[in-house]
Amino acid sequence: MLRLGPLAAAGRLLPAGPRLGPPRPSGGRVRLSRSRPPGPVGDRGLLARQVRAAAGSAGGGRSPALKTPKGTRDHPPAHVALRDRLLAAVVTCFKRHGAAAIDTPVLELRETLTGKYGEDTKLIYELQDQGGELLALRYDLTVPFARYLAMNKVTNMKRYHVAKVYRRDNPATTRGRYREFYQCDFDIAGQFDPMIPDAECLKIVHEILSDLQLGDFIIKVNDRRILNGVFAVCGIPESKFITTCSTVDKLDKMPWEEVRSEMVGEKGLSPEAADHIGEYVQLHGGLDLIEQLLQDPKLSQNKLAKEGLGDMKLLFEYLTLFGITGKISFDLSLARGLDYYTGVIFEAVLLQPENDHVEEPVSVGSVAGGGRYDELVGMFDPKGRKVPCVGVSIGIERIFSILEQRVKAEMLYKKDPKLLKQLQYCEDTGIPFAAIIGEQELTDGVVKLRDVATREEVDIPREKLVDEIRRRLEP
Amino acid sequence: MLRLGPLAAAGRLLPAGPRLGPPRPSGGRVRLSRSRPPGPVGDRGLLARQVRAAAGSAGGGRSPALKTPKGTRDHPPAHVALRDRLLAAVVTCFKRHGAAAIDTPVLELRETLTGKYGEDTKLIYELQDQGGELLALRYDLTVPFARYLAMNKVTNMKRYHVAKVYRRDNPATTRGRYREFYQCDFDIAGQFDPMIPDAECLKIVHEILSDLQLGDFIIKVNDRRILNGVFAVCGIPESKFITTCSTVDKLDKMPWEEVRSEMVGEKGLSPEAADHIGEYVQLHGGLDLIEQLLQDPKLSQNKLAKEGLGDMKLLFEYLTLFGITGKISFDLSLARGLDYYTGVIFEAVLLQPENDHVEEPVSVGSVAGGGRYDELVGMFDPKGRKVPCVGVSIGIERIFSILEQRVKAEMLYKKDPKLLKQLQYCEDTGIPFAAIIGEQELTDGVVKLRDVATREEVDIPREKLVDEIRRRLEP
Repeated sequence: MLRLGPLAAAGRLLPAGPRLGPPRPSGGRVRLSRSRPPGPVGDRGLLARQVRAAAGSAGGGRSPALKTPKGTRDHPPAHVALRDRLLAAVVTCFKRHGAAAIDTPVLELRETLTGKYGEDTKLIYELQDQGGELLALRYDLTVPFARYLAMNKVTNMKRYHVAKVYRRDNPATTRGRYREFYQCDFDIAGQFDPMIPDAECLKIVHEILSDLQLGDFIIKVNDRRILNGVFAVCGIPESKFITTCSTVDKLDKMPWEEVRSEMVGEKGLSPEAADHIGEYVQLHGGLDLIEQLLQDPKLSQNKLAKEGLGDMKLLFEYLTLFGITGKISFDLSLARGLDYYTGVIFEAVLLQPENDHVEEPVSVGSVAGGGRYDELVGMFDPKGRKVPCVGVSIGIERIFSILEQRVKAEMLYKKDPKLLKQLQYCEDTGIPFAAIIGEQELTDGVVKLRDVATREEVDIPREKLVDEIRRRLEP
Repeated sequence: MLRLGPLAAAGRLLPAGPRLGPPRPSGGRVRLSRSRPPGPVGDRGLLARQVRAAAGSAGGGRSPALKTPKGTRDHPPAHVALRDRLLAAVVTCFKRHGAAAIDTPVLELRETLTGKYGEDTKLIYELQDQGGELLALRYDLTVPFARYLAMNKVTNMKRYHVAKVYRRDNPATTRGRYREFYQCDFDIAGQFDPMIPDAECLKIVHEILSDLQLGDFIIKVNDRRILNGVFAVCGIPESKFITTCSTVDKLDKMPWEEVRSEMVGEKGLSPEAADHIGEYVQLHGGLDLIEQLLQDPKLSQNKLAKEGLGDMKLLFEYLTLFGITGKISFDLSLARGLDYYTGVIFEAVLLQPENDHVEEPVSVGSVAGGGRYDELVGMFDPKGRKVPCVGVSIGIERIFSILEQRVKAEMLYKKDPKLLKQLQYCEDTGIPFAAIIGEQELTDGVVKLRDVATREEVDIPREKLVDEIRRRLEP
């Protein structure tokens, strides 16, 4: 698999001006040409003055800060086009599995979101109290879905929802972690035979990550009941299950020793209990591990763990039928941060290839995650009626970051830029290739690929451009 | 044109359960059947207790209010499907005219939005100060576009943007006015020959409203420079231009007498000045009116008005070439509320048919609007560099409300509902028709249309269903 750092490759993938440059405002039925001068014409300055005056204190002469809010970004046309293709692939898979789309407001009542996200509650964006209801921006699409089901008394639904969510998280934009980002959720609500909907969710993750050709991946699977069973047999009091869960969840980012010291130091577990937990949560495997734990003298005595392990075995049987166990790992370190999970949980991560010739490797962490939340709808229903649910969320923004870095391309935001100037820019900044699309290339269905260093140019059929660039960039 | 009030017609347009009912969570590769009981199983109640406990004060036993925020709504699958079709039609038109999509965050810095919307500034949703930047939800897509152009130093772009905007307005949901709603914006940035981009925007509105077959419509056109010229020759001081503009803008909702008394009472104009304005702003027409005003002894002496009238004449010449002047009205009462317009402004309204057999007529007001804003980008640029812009926004939510009401359909949100129960519901609530889609109808590509009163059933080819229902509902 090929990964490219910034500026390691530059193709100019969109047909634009007469040669390159930004999209021209011509086309359609109206031909546009330039001639009107910009700036104040006649008495127009008057309006500008009025507008400025109306701006009040913030606009008084000073230009406003020219940026998007922290952790957010604009998407130029090339981004939107790539993202739309990604979303279309995901939605096609969701539809193939029989889901229908719903949409819910970006705003929710604050109380709808309260008490659903554990320690992450502090990351919720709250709106100013401007009179009326207290509002917040949605943190995910799962809680709004549960609210929707309860409100409309829907007990049975397979739905997908593609929309933006908001988290006041520490942004790590190079890793694709933003404060505003798309989620693509697929959920199954209703009572069905055990583990069949859960297996379908895993099948969907497998299909999407395979379709998108992101390279090797693994889907970690665990069950909250198994984790709680482990905590119980290790002598952790019930009141500390959720907080212990949060600490275990950090095992993918820090070594066991650090996790252990957080357990003992911050969370107040005994060193013996922490060591005992450590023996379990460092295990991962497949059906063999499930069988082994079912024979575990302590764990097999715990009702919750036994139930979880029984379901996990059943899940693996379905996954075997689907032929996807090769990418599934039963991993006792997987905990998932959110409060609302009650059963199976899972998370897909991309694997770095062993032979990775990348200057700046893209480390995006998890690209999909989900699980079973059988109690969430009941928290909204006035009579506490439950609707068992299981679902998965595809982290399209992180996938986008990978694809974006893999063949990184840019174009000059300059009207009708001179070709020579553009090539000069490539030489100055170390961009190795320029893709040139003019009238002739458009007609011929090709792209002229220029090696910036040698100045050799060759016509490449459009559909082969990306492969050709990748081939040339191989070490 | 046919308009139907709520429950005047009911087709069940989506294939659903075995007969009707909500979408079944089966399909795809996994067959799902029911058997697991809902509710706490084994020790699961433990998790529920933990989750509840974590909910803290808001979740302490009490169920949260089960609603979406005021002025917002959920969209069930049938809504989303209809809306997606509408959006696709609009986007196809935008692309046909050569525009590329961008996306910007829902959140903007508060100062980005300050001083751009005049009296409407109070309708902006502000986020709580949770440390860091002061943020607000975007009020429209125009100001973010201007910010985008200035930030990226783009001087030349034809872009479209389809996204939700937020206004703390008084919601009027039956008229399709919500606090969260989609806008579909098309804008042309750059310096071009006068009135050609402006004419293209009007052409686009004409194409979209014609394509969607919403019935008769008119596009009102005016120019801020003409209005300001009128105010000047009527002796209004420059400092009162914007506030007078806001009052004139109400002429579509209240009679001249009321507008006049607001001018004199609240805005402090002299009765003579108000009467003088009244003579102008009640005029509307076409090229003839433009010629008449160009001969007007006072107005022709005002530089601003003369410039606006000259451009208006040129605009009408282009619109004549496009063959769309039949739907365009030069209307001096059109003012548009927003501060940032500097030249041509326009607004499309649907016309109620004279012979309207509707119980609850849908009054949606304007369905598209826009204009020229040559100063807005300069307000963001640190050096005040201007980029002339003109654009249009299609009010897809209001159009959706019309289409929704026109053939209003509903379905029972009940799993596998008995057909008899559904027909009983139709009789009880006065729904005249039921559309039935079962296995056989799916195979045959037909829909069984049942007259609820007579109980007659007839198979209709699917693509003819809507026409057939409309035909039967005609008086």
